[in-house]
Amino acid sequence: MSEQLQVDTSPGAITRVPGFRAAGVACGLKTSGAADLALVVCDRPAAAAAMFTRNAFKAAPVVYDQALLSRAEAAIQAVVINAGNANACTGAQGLQAAERMAQLGEAALGLPPESVLVMSTGVIGQQLPMERVAAGISAAAGALSATGGAAAARAIMTTDLVPKEAFIQVKLGGVMVCIGGMAKGSGMIHPSLAPARHATMLAVLVTDAAVAPGALQAALARATRVSFNRITVDGDTSTNDTLLLLASGAAGNARLEGRRNGGGEDRRRGDRVTGDFGRFEAALTAVCVSLARQIARDGEGATRLVEISLRGAVSPAQAERAARTVATSPLVKTAIFGGDPNWGRVLAAVGRSGVRLEPGRVSLWLGDVQLVAGGEPLAFDIRAARAALQGPEVRLLVDLGLGRGQATVWTCDLSYKYVEINAEYHT
Amino acid sequence: MSEQLQVDTSPGAITRVPGFRAAGVACGLKTSGAADLALVVCDRPAAAAAMFTRNAFKAAPVVYDQALLSRAEAAIQAVVINAGNANACTGAQGLQAAERMAQLGEAALGLPPESVLVMSTGVIGQQLPMERVAAGISAAAGALSATGGAAAARAIMTTDLVPKEAFIQVKLGGVMVCIGGMAKGSGMIHPSLAPARHATMLAVLVTDAAVAPGALQAALARATRVSFNRITVDGDTSTNDTLLLLASGAAGNARLEGRRNGGGEDRRRGDRVTGDFGRFEAALTAVCVSLARQIARDGEGATRLVEISLRGAVSPAQAERAARTVATSPLVKTAIFGGDPNWGRVLAAVGRSGVRLEPGRVSLWLGDVQLVAGGEPLAFDIRAARAALQGPEVRLLVDLGLGRGQATVWTCDLSYKYVEINAEYHT
Repeated sequence: MSEQLQVDTSPGAITRVPGFRAAGVACGLKTSGAADLALVVCDRPAAAAAMFTRNAFKAAPVVYDQALLSRAEAAIQAVVINAGNANACTGAQGLQAAERMAQLGEAALGLPPESVLVMSTGVIGQQLPMERVAAGISAAAGALSATGGAAAARAIMTTDLVPKEAFIQVKLGGVMVCIGGMAKGSGMIHPSLAPARHATMLAVLVTDAAVAPGALQAALARATRVSFNRITVDGDTSTNDTLLLLASGAAGNARLEGRRNGGGEDRRRGDRVTGDFGRFEAALTAVCVSLARQIARDGEGATRLVEISLRGAVSPAQAERAARTVATSPLVKTAIFGGDPNWGRVLAAVGRSGVRLEPGRVSLWLGDVQLVAGGEPLAFDIRAARAALQGPEVRLLVDLGLGRGQATVWTCDLSYKYVEINAEYHT
Repeated sequence: MSEQLQVDTSPGAITRVPGFRAAGVACGLKTSGAADLALVVCDRPAAAAAMFTRNAFKAAPVVYDQALLSRAEAAIQAVVINAGNANACTGAQGLQAAERMAQLGEAALGLPPESVLVMSTGVIGQQLPMERVAAGISAAAGALSATGGAAAARAIMTTDLVPKEAFIQVKLGGVMVCIGGMAKGSGMIHPSLAPARHATMLAVLVTDAAVAPGALQAALARATRVSFNRITVDGDTSTNDTLLLLASGAAGNARLEGRRNGGGEDRRRGDRVTGDFGRFEAALTAVCVSLARQIARDGEGATRLVEISLRGAVSPAQAERAARTVATSPLVKTAIFGGDPNWGRVLAAVGRSGVRLEPGRVSLWLGDVQLVAGGEPLAFDIRAARAALQGPEVRLLVDLGLGRGQATVWTCDLSYKYVEINAEYHT
């Protein structure tokens, strides 16, 4: 990943990938009347990889997709997504509704059975109004277009203020391939995604690269670990979080087989993934990190993105645990909202995280201003520290001074608006 | 614990225990000019038991007290407590300040070395202004009185809106003994107290019962487990949390030796603690639970106390884990502030807690209204459910339907005021 990867976040990312069409329409699931049903369709069967929420209460669409994708080499050609109703905690009737949603998609698009996946986001515990969903699917099928990506990205929003999109191109063996993605998520954001297990962060990624299913899943799992699984808005892992990646192969590159071609090595063993597969994975990771940061920046009530980096831990897992504890601390998040360099709250969070540390070795920076060295407070320029809290992005760096473990986690501040959004949101 | 234990929460609890005097004075640590230094003194050396925060960044007074109490049979006669400055993350200078605070107390009271403990609460990372502390200790020593308990309970408050006090009497072998306690804590409340390890919840309990030090510590540890360690305001475990229990023995009861007398059995083994020791421990636990609930009710910005009971888990530890996950969910807490029976958020929190569950066996009650049975939503009376959210105390009960593990955790709702208190609190 030595080359600088440029991610384009302008509207319409999904449909900038050749062979993919999309649409976003309103069918009355959102009381506001805004678009609430999206369709993404590929011009051929695609290899699919997915990650789902680890929450034990999995929403009906999650259960449906997991079952479908567990069958050998599922050939997926479309995904139907609704916002406004999560179809979660809806029992047997909810499961039937998820299946029906997929079947309606297959019928409207003239696709074979078991070629359409479904996703839902919105209020928990209410049955999907199927007449509206059916009308929406029909309307969306009619509205499909090669420039519909932006409309789809808007239709999947719930409390999101802005759509999240990302697009990148990468050359594989002389062939240029594209990766496009869209995501939604603003509250109940603390993804804990696992392969074929359990995800109300929703994200759809599409590419025209040719990638073997196993390699596609492995690349997605690794990319998720350092992107979507590293963001938190409120610490609440949803019942619906789903991340889907479709690879059509239309670009015509030599099919990526993972570790077997391109000199790819498993990063879990500390090796670099190199060659074409490595380049593909790096580009995929860049798209995932871009979307993840866009979600954190648009967290419910957020006024700024907060990047928390932890280094010097005895292991990467310990670094992630400490960074995550800081990122979920209401006291740290309200201090950042208030623009106050209250570093004691940061150290208190690290201290309660349960990771190995020696207080006398801990250092802390806010932006470029060092506040703590060797566990003791420094006399710092309070104006510079306050200034570091005023921009759209706040950076905290904690160095435990013990080892080489490091991790970065993204979150947002905690504002009055967060309370308003969630206290005024009525079932 | 079959008898109903009546805890009296009226002012002056500490000094209703014969032999104890107290005072609360202002020495300028709080910018408001309110009382900020408290002194509690026993008329004789007392057996001491204590619990301290598990946070790895232990404040200087915690380090000082732990060292002193680690010496064999420490004879403690007083405690000096300041509010407005936590003396945490203050390095070597902070440790010297904590020791100096104890020595000033000993000098002002004419007590031998190592007979005074110290506690601090307030802002982290600033050195204690020792001239003010010295003046405060001197003034408090002069103001000591047998009716000073209420003043002491007020002097230890920080963002607390009301003082927390509790008093009980229990007859041991024909002798009436008293237990009185005071506590403070409103934010950074998620105590994780361990014997002689690491607490900005502060609590001082005093009794005139005669109890052997080992038995006193064991009883306090067990009482803490089901009281102070079961409350959370914001999930942030402080660097300063400290709980101290002094037993003077002045009541003249036959000294309680724990399991060896009174038929006492170790509750950790599932046995009942009975006889005099059992009665003492039950009374102590009642005082601790009362103070813990008072803290949760007065959590920063709280409009109501929330009691979360979890039953039917495969173990008590799993029940506590699930209940604690619900209690720390910002989405659940904002829904309760908003008065909305958004039960989906409760189930989502239980689902992400990582405890063993089968969605189809889970049931949920809000007050007396059942919302979910066997994992499926019930048609419930929305007005009754909303009414259950309007009182000063909200009760949630989740039954996992798997085993006999149960636990109760107390928290409060999350309001605009919480954000205001913590965003406007400047270092």
